[in-house]
Amino acid sequence: MSMIDKNLTSFIDIASDSDFSIHNLPYGIFSDTAKGERRAGVAIGEQVLDLSVLEAKGLLSLKGGPYFNQPTLNAFIESGRDNWTQARQTIQTLLSADNETLRDNQELQSQALFKQADVTMHLPVHVPGYTDFYSSKEHATNVGTMFRDPNNALLPNWTEMPVGYNGRASTVFVSGEADIVRPSGQLKPNDSERPIFSPCKRLDFELEMAFIVGKPNQIGEPIAIENAWDHIFGMVLFNDWSARDIQKWEYVPLGPFNAKTFASEISPWIVTMDALAPFKTELPTQDPQPLAYLQETKSDSSYDINLSVAILPEGADTATTVGETNFKYMYWSMAQQLTHHTITGCKVEVGDMMGSGTISGPTPDSYGSMLEIAWNATKPVELKGGGTRTFIEDGDTVIMKGYSEKDGIRVGFGEVRGKVLPALDFNFDA
Amino acid sequence: MSMIDKNLTSFIDIASDSDFSIHNLPYGIFSDTAKGERRAGVAIGEQVLDLSVLEAKGLLSLKGGPYFNQPTLNAFIESGRDNWTQARQTIQTLLSADNETLRDNQELQSQALFKQADVTMHLPVHVPGYTDFYSSKEHATNVGTMFRDPNNALLPNWTEMPVGYNGRASTVFVSGEADIVRPSGQLKPNDSERPIFSPCKRLDFELEMAFIVGKPNQIGEPIAIENAWDHIFGMVLFNDWSARDIQKWEYVPLGPFNAKTFASEISPWIVTMDALAPFKTELPTQDPQPLAYLQETKSDSSYDINLSVAILPEGADTATTVGETNFKYMYWSMAQQLTHHTITGCKVEVGDMMGSGTISGPTPDSYGSMLEIAWNATKPVELKGGGTRTFIEDGDTVIMKGYSEKDGIRVGFGEVRGKVLPALDFNFDA
Repeated sequence: MSMIDKNLTSFIDIASDSDFSIHNLPYGIFSDTAKGERRAGVAIGEQVLDLSVLEAKGLLSLKGGPYFNQPTLNAFIESGRDNWTQARQTIQTLLSADNETLRDNQELQSQALFKQADVTMHLPVHVPGYTDFYSSKEHATNVGTMFRDPNNALLPNWTEMPVGYNGRASTVFVSGEADIVRPSGQLKPNDSERPIFSPCKRLDFELEMAFIVGKPNQIGEPIAIENAWDHIFGMVLFNDWSARDIQKWEYVPLGPFNAKTFASEISPWIVTMDALAPFKTELPTQDPQPLAYLQETKSDSSYDINLSVAILPEGADTATTVGETNFKYMYWSMAQQLTHHTITGCKVEVGDMMGSGTISGPTPDSYGSMLEIAWNATKPVELKGGGTRTFIEDGDTVIMKGYSEKDGIRVGFGEVRGKVLPALDFNFDA
Repeated sequence: MSMIDKNLTSFIDIASDSDFSIHNLPYGIFSDTAKGERRAGVAIGEQVLDLSVLEAKGLLSLKGGPYFNQPTLNAFIESGRDNWTQARQTIQTLLSADNETLRDNQELQSQALFKQADVTMHLPVHVPGYTDFYSSKEHATNVGTMFRDPNNALLPNWTEMPVGYNGRASTVFVSGEADIVRPSGQLKPNDSERPIFSPCKRLDFELEMAFIVGKPNQIGEPIAIENAWDHIFGMVLFNDWSARDIQKWEYVPLGPFNAKTFASEISPWIVTMDALAPFKTELPTQDPQPLAYLQETKSDSSYDINLSVAILPEGADTATTVGETNFKYMYWSMAQQLTHHTITGCKVEVGDMMGSGTISGPTPDSYGSMLEIAWNATKPVELKGGGTRTFIEDGDTVIMKGYSEKDGIRVGFGEVRGKVLPALDFNFDA
């Protein structure tokens, strides 16, 4: 499963630095026009292959269905791993240079291939539940150092469990679907005075990834760690937009709420775990060894995925990369997260999204949030053509990218991109 | 709207102490047999009126539809307030002693009326999102006194905002649908040692109510307080089952997670805000006056709803009431909760459930959780035929009830009832 056939090529022109090689084949939901009919596609080079067309012509031979003339991928994902495998193999064959079915049928190509630049992408799955973890040791240490105690930066539970919290699924949206309106809420600029109602002054991104649950459990039935990987369909890039000043005032004792529920933005293409298999790598050493229910049964339970975040100021020609990190720095694996999530009996559902938490690496150029990059506003960052930043300003566009690469083969995620608009104009009588 | 017509009676026999008078008419989803077809009904006395039958016969004259031959109430609720009003008036008329349509039609009665004892109740709405607030000052003070500092029991943000957190919608279920399996997870019995994996030893209930959102907003568009009541359809009883020992170890800094996501149990009948209108009452005085965006525009923005919680030990003949409280003790109103929830732009959806938080009154006999009733296990409670309790034991059934009463008119919620089963038997190799 994890071997790469380097000889596999497509009849479609694919640039060598494209995220969407024939080894990738990520799933998304698209339409011709913004209001056109939504259906499933696979990204290949600069194009989208319309799976609803292939399915209608009987070229996919899946069990059940139809799955792809639908506005979300949930039904396909729910149909199970045999279908995931079958679909991937069939689509890869249909796109390969050796196979004539699509290669030599211009009419079919004209029906089934669209330029990515011409289509509108939509949320690829209905997300019934969204949970955000906090699984980067470097990030948790940085935050603890800034806000608590540098000598005891990690809280005692952090190395014992993948700490996480329930997010708000209704505000998960796909890159390009909406701009980010700067949120307004309660801030407390002065410790000795009452809070004020104000636009957020410390708007931040969080460079994360998220996995999509592919198989449910039943309420009361935890997912054992040796089965956890069977429940994971694929991954996306995730910008967990955060209002740091709102968060600081609200989060004790029940956790982040208003500071996080205004915008949770993901990339449009779900890269499957099958496509990512060649890029498996080891987790960092876990010390202490986790409790038995959290002990990984495989050593290569992380993934080598290069990640970057850049800021494009309004009117600037180029974006400035402000952080470069890697998914492999995550301390807790996705399987450990999922097992912990369900250990008390919580039900997870197909389409559920589980965020990694901000992914920071060991060095200042590998941090995943402005809070860390500009170190609590003490180290402003210079942007090409856009002055300096400690947090995100109105008009800024934040762009996150991610890809794996090995032996010349590239499997990427595209990007998640969001532009910040000014806060709403509230008019209170009081 | 809020006046009670005391002369209104039904041709159906309804006991004077029934929760389901002709003034109530709460909505639920039922089926004849556990696996039978789900449709909407209204509780009346000891019976259920099948709305799908009335609708099919053209007796309800709503805009759009059909709404009631469906497995959830979401479509009906989403159809809007005009339909809510029209349905309530028509159903009340059809059930009244003065109206012959149903009264004099035995065949229609045999098709449309079922004994509640003979039907299976289901989750009345699909719950896209679930949020739990923490809005009882007495409860927050009790918890703060026990776990933090009696002299500073309330955290500084508590009187400034309705503190809340995102819950897990996938584990919301209806009373009777499932027993509660005692959860297992990480506990830390000894501060100086590592945590252990164990069945929860401090299993608790939380006596709450929850409101159901009836009208959505758009992402980025907060619901102003003067419009918030338009977004609320009705209320249910809610037992927010909690694992106190798991919670204590996990909840800093991101809030409760595993301790809450195993069972969130609601009563089957949604009592509408129209039915509750006669029982409006004043909120407690809010000091300090909230920030402008949270200032209520009406003075009678709470509700007088009597609440009780009882424990029925395995094999005992009678349940012992361990707490009696009232919804009117809530410090923050439902409108304030909803406005605060959306102030940074969070989207809410039809069917979303918003829990009140544990509702405790001012005296020890009015507390809403065993944590408070047995005061952190220092004051065991005697049960009739069941020994003593500091928390909930295997085999215990917890029963919560609620009703409003005024001028001899009663509008009630029925009950939410859950039995605790022993923990799963985990077998780890380690």
